[in-house]
Amino acid sequence: MRLAPLTLAFGAALVLALPTARAEDPLRAQAKQLFGVIPELAPELPDNPKTAAKVDLGRMLYFDPRLSESHNISCNSCHLIGLGGADGRANSIGHNWQHGARNAPTVFNAIFNTAQFWDGRAKDLKEQAGGPIVNPIEMSITKSHAVAQLKGIPGYAAPFKAAFPGESDPITYGNIERAIAVFESTLITPDAPFDLWLKGDDAALAEPAKKGLAIFIDAGCAACHNGINIGGRMYAPFGVVEKPGWEYLPPNDHGRLAVTNTIADDYVFKVPGLRNVALTAPYFHSGSAWSLTQAVTVMARSQLGKTLSDSEITAIVAFLDSLTGKQPQVVFPILPPSVATTPQPVE
Amino acid sequence: MRLAPLTLAFGAALVLALPTARAEDPLRAQAKQLFGVIPELAPELPDNPKTAAKVDLGRMLYFDPRLSESHNISCNSCHLIGLGGADGRANSIGHNWQHGARNAPTVFNAIFNTAQFWDGRAKDLKEQAGGPIVNPIEMSITKSHAVAQLKGIPGYAAPFKAAFPGESDPITYGNIERAIAVFESTLITPDAPFDLWLKGDDAALAEPAKKGLAIFIDAGCAACHNGINIGGRMYAPFGVVEKPGWEYLPPNDHGRLAVTNTIADDYVFKVPGLRNVALTAPYFHSGSAWSLTQAVTVMARSQLGKTLSDSEITAIVAFLDSLTGKQPQVVFPILPPSVATTPQPVE
Repeated sequence: MRLAPLTLAFGAALVLALPTARAEDPLRAQAKQLFGVIPELAPELPDNPKTAAKVDLGRMLYFDPRLSESHNISCNSCHLIGLGGADGRANSIGHNWQHGARNAPTVFNAIFNTAQFWDGRAKDLKEQAGGPIVNPIEMSITKSHAVAQLKGIPGYAAPFKAAFPGESDPITYGNIERAIAVFESTLITPDAPFDLWLKGDDAALAEPAKKGLAIFIDAGCAACHNGINIGGRMYAPFGVVEKPGWEYLPPNDHGRLAVTNTIADDYVFKVPGLRNVALTAPYFHSGSAWSLTQAVTVMARSQLGKTLSDSEITAIVAFLDSLTGKQPQVVFPILPPSVATTPQPVE
Repeated sequence: MRLAPLTLAFGAALVLALPTARAEDPLRAQAKQLFGVIPELAPELPDNPKTAAKVDLGRMLYFDPRLSESHNISCNSCHLIGLGGADGRANSIGHNWQHGARNAPTVFNAIFNTAQFWDGRAKDLKEQAGGPIVNPIEMSITKSHAVAQLKGIPGYAAPFKAAFPGESDPITYGNIERAIAVFESTLITPDAPFDLWLKGDDAALAEPAKKGLAIFIDAGCAACHNGINIGGRMYAPFGVVEKPGWEYLPPNDHGRLAVTNTIADDYVFKVPGLRNVALTAPYFHSGSAWSLTQAVTVMARSQLGKTLSDSEITAIVAFLDSLTGKQPQVVFPILPPSVATTPQPVE
């Protein structure tokens, strides 16, 4: 008994000396298992090594409207670097003011998604990058026209050569896709409050956000929205429990059914990542929910069959707000000029 | 007579010791009188002091498509920072894919122009900045809608307060114009080879460009294209000596006549500055000449009544190429996000 105080004192010293031995906050432990921290440096793409020259070229192509038939639309037209990597519209405006069928997903952190587009029809960033360029309602150019366009701009020869050294004819559609994909892979948003908290900074996440995180997990949201991107890893029908109204789920868009031709994929969409979601209203593939409150309410009903209370929704929104990370600082690239022989925009 | 060699030697030593006493290259002396060097720092705008906060706000507004009715068009849509401050199209695409009536002039160095727009209808950058936003075929918003839009984005409150300190209600249309004007005033392109040569660097201008400069002056081009911007200081009829074809001078665009209502201004336009002209094809208010060779040929005939030889034209183009300066490095601004109550794009 007389030794007890000494033992306690010794135990306390041990705890101080070995802080990692402290029992971890159970919520954080659970969150670490379900989600993941955005790394400071983006991972490499398979078979497409990241070099400074390739990032620079990709940045040029990302901002160059001459990759569209009209010379009026670039990747950045619908995935704005300054607007969370999206465009803040229900659907985007493309060639000849045609409207896209779905809401433009953010390009930020897209590298952490399993597949690209709302229906996952592109397996990676490279395949995605090549899609909108040739889509007749988006940038509306052909692959051969895109290649001829860039070959017709003398100042692109050197950047392509630098990005793809050793290739005798580096200006190809595949290399356009590769360079854009590598640039896009750098568009990550580390150090969101949620990440800092996951890494151990107790003060980074305020109480309402922590409460929201707990509800997000307990209510079942994290069953689909998990991983580094808090989503982006799987597909799910919109309306697992209860179909939402047609204003959210337009009947003519059958989602992944068109990709797989499998009836089980009717109205199935990729679960979107929720990183920076506070910056990218409106929500859903239909761009039909203009607030997080509305989006969370609809999701809870349609996917989980739950009617959340106002305070639960407010808490979840506080958690979602904590997913906004450091936005990429991108210098607007100086593009090589067109010359007399450069193909002109098609009217 | 015996002293002569000594005198000569003394004279030679004097020349070496006082290089400024050396007779200046007469071409440079003439060029210095006619033109001007782009300064490293842009001048201040009258009644609109340049502060870091105002430049930052102006940069945000310049890139923010929410200043258009569709949330799809920003200043940068037609005056691309990476394309010489213009868009490389004959005329620009605006709201609902409407086409502008004239070629988008470069925003770079516009601060050095006497007035803005092809017809000079805006007296300065501030007045210009407010025009396209409310033009129904460009960004197509109303002034009150633009103000309500920005007031509806909570993150704009602080930047406006910082840019216009002491104002109780700083989000006004006038302040939108002021901030954009100040940002635009920073978009200058110093250190073109021509500037370096004007400042005394003999090697900066190659022989063909010097020859072209001499022809440019002798042929009479510099009668209109003079000053810091090699133009931008006066108005002139397109076709002083001989009207060009209607493909260059569309009959329905009477130029400055519509501004002054004076018959002497029929088909009169502002003389465009020629800084960075190699980057901003196509040329003329009609955007109808796709090469400098073509533009120089047409100008010589229509404005001077001269048919230049191929070698003269080549030399002038070499001179024009020497007017490309250091392009502005602009970081794409992180724009404040829309929230649930922010006015949505109008479809």
